[in-house]
Parts: sequence; C-alpha cells; structure tokens
Amino acid sequence: MRASRFFISTLKEAPSDAEIISHKLMLRAGMIKRLGSGIYNYMPMGLRVIRKVEAIVREEMNRAGAVELLMPLVQPAELWQETGRWDKMGPEMMRVKDRHGRDYAIQPTSEEVVTDLVRTEIKSYRQLPVNFYHIQTKFRDERRPRFGLMRGREFTMKDAYSFDRNVEGMQQSYRIMYDAYVRIFNRFGLQFRAVAADNGAIGGSGSHEFHVIADTGEDALVYCPSSDYAANIEAADALPLISMRAPAAQPLVKTPTPEKSKCEDVAALLGLPLTRTVKSIVLAVEKNEGKEIWLLLLRGDHELNEVKAGKVPGLGEYRFASESEIFEWFGTKPGYLGPINTKKPVKIVADRTVANMSDFVCGANEEDFHYTGANWVRDMPEPVVADIRNVVEGDASPDGKGTLAIQRGIEVGHVFQLGDRYSRDMKATYLDEGGKPQLMQMGCYGIGITRILGAAIEQNFDDKGIIWPASIAPFEVVLCPMGYDRNEAVKAEADKLYDGLVANGVDVILDDRGERPGAMFADWELIGVPHRIVIGDRGLKEGALEYQGRRETSPTPVPISQIGEFIRAKLAG
Amino acid sequence: MRASRFFISTLKEAPSDAEIISHKLMLRAGMIKRLGSGIYNYMPMGLRVIRKVEAIVREEMNRAGAVELLMPLVQPAELWQETGRWDKMGPEMMRVKDRHGRDYAIQPTSEEVVTDLVRTEIKSYRQLPVNFYHIQTKFRDERRPRFGLMRGREFTMKDAYSFDRNVEGMQQSYRIMYDAYVRIFNRFGLQFRAVAADNGAIGGSGSHEFHVIADTGEDALVYCPSSDYAANIEAADALPLISMRAPAAQPLVKTPTPEKSKCEDVAALLGLPLTRTVKSIVLAVEKNEGKEIWLLLLRGDHELNEVKAGKVPGLGEYRFASESEIFEWFGTKPGYLGPINTKKPVKIVADRTVANMSDFVCGANEEDFHYTGANWVRDMPEPVVADIRNVVEGDASPDGKGTLAIQRGIEVGHVFQLGDRYSRDMKATYLDEGGKPQLMQMGCYGIGITRILGAAIEQNFDDKGIIWPASIAPFEVVLCPMGYDRNEAVKAEADKLYDGLVANGVDVILDDRGERPGAMFADWELIGVPHRIVIGDRGLKEGALEYQGRRETSPTPVPISQIGEFIRAKLAG
Repeated sequence: MRASRFFISTLKEAPSDAEIISHKLMLRAGMIKRLGSGIYNYMPMGLRVIRKVEAIVREEMNRAGAVELLMPLVQPAELWQETGRWDKMGPEMMRVKDRHGRDYAIQPTSEEVVTDLVRTEIKSYRQLPVNFYHIQTKFRDERRPRFGLMRGREFTMKDAYSFDRNVEGMQQSYRIMYDAYVRIFNRFGLQFRAVAADNGAIGGSGSHEFHVIADTGEDALVYCPSSDYAANIEAADALPLISMRAPAAQPLVKTPTPEKSKCEDVAALLGLPLTRTVKSIVLAVEKNEGKEIWLLLLRGDHELNEVKAGKVPGLGEYRFASESEIFEWFGTKPGYLGPINTKKPVKIVADRTVANMSDFVCGANEEDFHYTGANWVRDMPEPVVADIRNVVEGDASPDGKGTLAIQRGIEVGHVFQLGDRYSRDMKATYLDEGGKPQLMQMGCYGIGITRILGAAIEQNFDDKGIIWPASIAPFEVVLCPMGYDRNEAVKAEADKLYDGLVANGVDVILDDRGERPGAMFADWELIGVPHRIVIGDRGLKEGALEYQGRRETSPTPVPISQIGEFIRAKLAG
Repeated sequence: MRASRFFISTLKEAPSDAEIISHKLMLRAGMIKRLGSGIYNYMPMGLRVIRKVEAIVREEMNRAGAVELLMPLVQPAELWQETGRWDKMGPEMMRVKDRHGRDYAIQPTSEEVVTDLVRTEIKSYRQLPVNFYHIQTKFRDERRPRFGLMRGREFTMKDAYSFDRNVEGMQQSYRIMYDAYVRIFNRFGLQFRAVAADNGAIGGSGSHEFHVIADTGEDALVYCPSSDYAANIEAADALPLISMRAPAAQPLVKTPTPEKSKCEDVAALLGLPLTRTVKSIVLAVEKNEGKEIWLLLLRGDHELNEVKAGKVPGLGEYRFASESEIFEWFGTKPGYLGPINTKKPVKIVADRTVANMSDFVCGANEEDFHYTGANWVRDMPEPVVADIRNVVEGDASPDGKGTLAIQRGIEVGHVFQLGDRYSRDMKATYLDEGGKPQLMQMGCYGIGITRILGAAIEQNFDDKGIIWPASIAPFEVVLCPMGYDRNEAVKAEADKLYDGLVANGVDVILDDRGERPGAMFADWELIGVPHRIVIGDRGLKEGALEYQGRRETSPTPVPISQIGEFIRAKLAG
C-alpha cells in the first residue's frame, strides 16, 4: 500500500471524552471515528486490524471443524419469545417494528436463530455434531456505552454454536473450541488467561472466559501460580479461612459504639482486629407469598460477591433492601445491624468464614450499639452457610495446591456449555439410533472481534502510541523515505524496496506523502506499525538503510544489499 | 474442503412460496434459508459465493483507488434530518429508538454518514479526491419483499462515495468507477449491460445502471445494436414518430362508440389503425393554490413512462386521479376522456408523437362517444409537448445511428453523479488554493452483492440446477468418488487427488459423504460446481478418471497421470 492511496488521519490530542488509553490512541491514530454514543466508523486503518483479527479467528474456527454461515441481523420476535428471552433481555436488546407492525430484535446474539435453523436442518444423529459460526455486526443498547470499542453499542462479534447428541459430545465440542481459542489468542500475540466463569443470563452448566491481561481490565482474575486453577472472581471458590468453629469464650455484651457504623471504625474503637468483626448486608426478595428480607453476614474485611449471592437457594431474584425496609425489619438504620434480636424475622446467610467465627462483633440492631462476644447457637440459631464473598489475594487455592493471586483482565472471549437450555424451549431434537427424538446438547462460543483491538492496545502501548503485535498490526512494515517528494535517489530506493517487499508478499506501507521526518515518524509510532525502515540521503551514501523495531529505542543500520533478508528474519519472529 | 466437514443440505422440491428460478434453486441447493419475510440465513454454501463476489469487488475497488472502511449500521437521525431524508425516505427506512428515546435509522445507504465523516476529515484541496467504500449489511423495509435475494429486506451492498474539488473531478471519479464496474462484471463472468439511468430519489445529475441480462429481469433495457446507445427504458429518449404535423383533412365528428372504452376496441369498431387513436391518462397534483388536474395524451399503441411524467414541469409530485376526480373534471368516466370540451379546465400534455398527429381519434368527454378527425389548434389549443412514453422496439435511436432493441435486465449496480446534493445540505466544504471554502462534488456507487447471486442464476441455469460462472462458484472443482466409504482404491485415489489439488491452491471439495452416485451427482449439478471429476472403480482399473464440465452432457475420460494438467487447463479457462 502507498500512503498516498490510503487514508491516514492522525490527531495530536485525543477528544476529551476518551477516558482510557486504548480509546484515546485509537482516536488519535485515526483507527475509529465516533458517529454517536457507542457507535463508531471503523476507519481504513482500524478496519485493517479488524480484518486481520477476523482472518485469524476464521482460520482457527475452520481448522477446528466449525462451518461459517451468516445469520440475519434483524430477527423475528417470535423466536425470541419461544425461549422467553424477548421479555428477559431488557432494554439492552434493541427492538424494532416493521411497516406492518411486526416485532423484530436487532440481534445481540443468535442462539434462537441458530437453534431454529438446526431444528429444521438436522434430522438424524448421523448429522451430529455440527458447529456453525458467523462473524457479524451486533447491537447492544448499553446503558452507559464507553471506552471506545471496549464497550460500544454496535460491535463485531464471532459467535459459534455447537450441537451434539449428548452431554459428553457437547463437552468434547466445548474442549475443541477451548483449544481453538487458545490457538487464536496465541496467534494474536497477546498475553491472555482462560478462567472458569459464571454462566450468567445465557444459562447452561459451565463456561470459561478468555481475558487479555491488562492493568486497566474491568475483571478480576483469580489464579493459582502453582497450579492451573483460574477463575473470574465472580466464580472463584472462597474457602473458609477458619477451618473449625472454636467454642464460645466471651459473654455477649452490648457495647456503645456511638457514630461508629463501619466495621473499621468499630474495630478501632474496641481495639480489635478487623477480622473479629462481622458486617451485615440486607437483601429483599419479592415472592408470591410476600416480601422476604435476608441478612447476609461477611467478615469485616471481606466483600460481597453479588453473583454468588444470587446462587443461594431462594435469592435468585434479589435486590438490595431499601432503608425503610431495613428500619421496618431491624428497628434501626444501617451500620448497627446484626443477626441477634431482629425486629421482624429475617433469613440469615453466613459466609463460610463467618459461620466458623466465635466471639465476634456485630451490630446490635440498635443505633450506636454493637455486640461483642457474639456466638452461633448460644446467641442465635445456626445460619444458612454459603460462599458469598470475593476471594482475596493469599487465600488458599480451591484445588489445595497453593495460594491465590489476582490480576486484571479484559474479557474478549467466552465459551459456554448450554446443555438443552435452548433446544428444550425450541424443541430442537434429532432422531437417535433407535429412531427416538432426543434434545440436542448445545454450546456457544463468542469472541469480541472489535474489542480485541482495545484490549490489545491496553496491553501494548507506550507514550508514543500503540504497539501492535505483528499478527494484527494494520501493516507489518512501514517504509519512511526522508524527502520522498524532493530527493530522487531516496525516492528511487524507496520505490525499489517497496516493490520488492510487495512482490514477496510483505504487508508493507510506503509513506510517499512527503511529510517532514518528525511528523512522519510520530505518525507511525502512534499508529504502531512494528517494523520501520528509514531511507535517507545520508544512509544511502554509505549504502545503508535504518531499521527500528517499534519497541526499540534506537535504529540499526542495515546494508541495502541485506535488507530483504534482514526483514524476512524480523518478520519470521 | 471435505464435504464431511462442510454443511450440504439440498432439497428435491423448492418451498411453494419461491416464485422465480433463482429463488427456487438457491433454496434447493441449500444456499439460503428463509428466516422471515425478505430475511435469509446465508448458509455455508451460499456464503462462499457471497465471499467470492465480495473479494472481486474489493480487489477492483482497491485497484481503482477507493479505500475501504466500515460505517455503522445504526445511524443517528440527526444526520438524516440535515439532508431532509429522515422525512423523505418513507417506511422503507427502518427506524428505531434507543433506550433514551433517541431516533436512529437502520441504514439503507450511507450518503449522510460518509459526508459527515468527510466534512470533518477533509480540510484542504490537497486531500481530494477521496473515494471511500464499505461492504455491509443493509436493511430496507420493502413493501413486498420477494424473489429471495433479489428483493430481500436485509441484504449486502457495496457502496462507495467519491468526493472531488469540482464537477470535472467528479466526472473523472465517476468514469474511474464506471470502468471498475465493467472490470468487476467481466470478472463475474456474467453477460451485462451498462445503461443510462434515471437518478431517482437519490438526486444528482447523471447515472448509469449495470444490469445482468436475463429474460426474467424486472427492467427493460433499451439499446441500439449499431451504436453504443443504451438506457434504462425509464430514461430512454423517445423521439416523435411523426416528424411534422400534417394539416387537418377531416372534420371533427362526435361518433358513437358504445361500450368501447379501450383504444383497441374503438379502432376496431371504426376500422382504423390503432396508431390513429389517442389515449388519455389523468393525473392530479396537490398545490398550495389547490388541486390541479392534468391530462396526458399518448398514441393508442404507446405506454406511459411514469418517470418521464414526473419530470414534466409542474408534475413533480403527481398521483393518478381518482374516478370521482375524473368525473368532476371531465363529466364522464374513464374510457371516453379527451382534450376537447372538458367540464373544468385541465392542463394538457401531449406526447411528442401525439403533438404531431392530425385527424386523430380521442374520447369526447361523454360516455359511449369518441371524436374522429380531431386536430390541434382547430379543435383545441396547442398542448404542452413532452416525452412521456416508453420507447418501443424499432424506434429510432436518439443518437441517430439505427433503431432500438429492448432486452430484460436485473439491476445489480448503479453509479451516480450526485454533485453537491449532499455536500450543500451538510456544508461539506474544503479550502481551495486561495483558502476559500468550496462545496465538494460527490459521486456514489453501489453494487448489490447478494443480488448478484440471484441475477447470476437467472442468467445461468438448466433443468438440473445452477450453473455458476467459475469465478463465483462456491467451489471450482468437485471430486465425486464412487463408494468412498467402501472402496479402498477409490478412497485412496480420491484422497491423493484431493491433497494434490489443495496443495496447488485449487478450490476443490471432496464429496466423502459416501452418498450413492445418483444422489451425489444430482447434488453437485443442483449446486452448480463448474468442474466435476468422478473417481470410479471401473475407470481406475483402466487408469482413468472422468471429467465433466457443468454445461457438458457427457463425461470425458482422463488418464490419471494427466489429471493435474487437465484440470489446470480447464481452470485457466
């Protein structure tokens, strides 16, 4: 590509609404251009990266036996009603009526459509397994679109869907996809981690997320450096930190703690470690029989894990209780709540660690008072015990093979075992060897194509700009002639080198714009092309060009006669 | 590709709602699968064809200097309001509100977005010309979606937009695109014709359509076999068939024509040729000053051209008059209308041919009566004269170089000179050499990617199925082993041949499904792969394979040792 036939548009400053580095750099490098909230033009430079990401994904999906098709963007509501998701999906799913008043979804994902397709196309066990995928524009009407391509509303996703005869088959298809994802992320040249994850709203029985490691990641990834345990913090098992409950040693004493409503303050006032305190979180659940109020107890230094809370039997549809509800059930305000002598009966859930504590401090359900020496059984009944907290760095690994560490990640892929979640509602069956209809077992597998760009940059940048991994860079090599528009010798050498590299299939751009060297170098450092060759008058007189890798701080002179081989070696790795 | 790792799904019969051959064959060949009205899944077999079409389009667009980007599907209403098209587009444009109640268009086309992009990116004359294109999903909520991919609601289009400093530049960009389109359609291997066209609702000053020739085409293409004149019938100039008006020779006579309301019947009754009659068409226009009724006069054997009628000054927004309006203005019912003695004043437009007729027959504005011997000036004032009819086969070519022929075509491409239609409304300016802002001159260029598939089939099929041109066939070569699942020698030879072809970059599919030969051959003839090689036990004993081209009626034996060279020669053309 010659720069004069391409479109390069860089900015010195990022627009002020760009919050994170990848968003800023993509705008400055002219990769994307905002059209509306969470909606971007993919500019020529950005589109090249997207196409490279897509090509790698496509190759590895095909290699893994998945078959590409393309499902529609505008999907009839009827299919979404079959699975109940028309109602469940909420405002994130954009809905539209056609001229006849019929309802359609602008697809956020395609489980329903692919299941509909498969239930009519697949008749016999002989046709299974199948795995269909497409790479396609999606729309999700995020409440707060932000961070450029990281949380846009319109974005590109690869979504694949496997169908199998039974659970074992599904697990095998899942494993094949998991392995393909590992190859894909390796080929991207990104540091990543696959972690066990929560299935969330999509349903089903098991899933893994693929995260690009970056300090700016929204997710906390829990892993064990001495084993292969890894999970999103949402799904990471927190073991009890106290293995057995000690007998009560202290009397229950109601203690004044005026204006101390936080565990930290109460512990400080009482001269006790924070780990002796218990904090209270109040949830409400609307049931047919009426409202239930639940009290969740965590050790003072721990944090509630909202996903885990939702898995406690009976808490599926919880919300946080209002202050007036708290007053009605506990007789006091937040900050002084506890499990002993509530005003009205509440259901009590203790985190695994709290369940094994003795002689602890908790609110007394009276303003400005806490209990010390609180003990299970003696002072209050045994609670329901559940894992409801986030693990913390240093916790024992659930596999017993070490202690846990935490790092930040950006979710870019997710694989799910869905089982018959969709095939059951949509009656997607095949005939087995005996001629009996059986439900297909399904998996689904997503990669956020456009989000990869943001994640790659969050992991790879410096103060000059983006540092693309070679496999997804918009161009692999840039040729920077000094004075292309006014120095014949430089122009001739640059053109010759360009033609030679093109003939050898190198993805090269020749900057023939005639920009001043400083501006030209700054552009390509911002854009993040991994390999740069400078063709200058002075060097030419000595028969040399200058090579500089994007992460290098100074150039290397290379004799003209060796430049082809030199570049080949650099590109090889 | 091995068939066992692909997805092949053929049908003996097409669903009953498929009306035209391409729609039927695409459904039967498993290329597409209906999801909703005008909305299709592109199945793996069909998607391969789409990708090949896209690749050819992309290569030629890039070669012509256009730059690929990707504009969003969901576009803010504000931009469409700037050009007034938010209101003008009507129900074909799907509109959607986001969770905050903001209006968006699901884009049917991207003039507004690209003009917005260019007005902020392009500052100086030095940056022009530019030509941006994307290949993308579009949605148009057609009133009556039909014919499969031919008139779907969701479809894929390539749309390009050029911006120039002045009209000459625009015309040059237009010519470059025109030439690129010729290359593209040649590479598709389709018979096509470029014709001058009407600009329609998109506006601007000139355009050409590219049509795939097919008897089933919706459009009539007018061309002159002895010159390069070619136009869509909507835009083809109809010259007067009578060069000069003869003096009146007959008296005006009111003649009873009971129950003869059609020109054909009146002519037969009176024993006159149809070419002596004049037919009346009544249009209404709502103006601020009130309703206007217009009478358009055509020779009895001619047809109204509705596009041309709309270009008569004052008729821009016409509709056909209702029967009650006709009664009010003419005092009688349709079938007996004419220009003489209307009940209320009407504006009269005569086609160029009618304007030169003398002693003609027309309705008498009285039920069951016509006039004979009607003459301009003597019996009624001179009319407004305009070209308002469709040309017919044998008319003189407007370029004076022969007579016109007509064939049917399917519109698959359209290039437009838009001028400043959009840049004016959206203030898309650049600074000229003198530092003064000037409006950019714009062109736009579309290709209906998915419609190409339908058009290619309408032109290339037989009673066995589709006959793809090699350049866009889903596979170039199919290997059909007879008994792949049970004959070791056949399997070994088929695998070897397959591996060899793959290694040589041939786009080949090996049918390793173990189907019976009849079903296997029928599948591939239906799917339309251009080259077939049969590997059979009997042939192998004689060291031969059988080759058959899709248009051939019998196979050619080819010695195994020569098969590579044989196929290479076939693929070369």
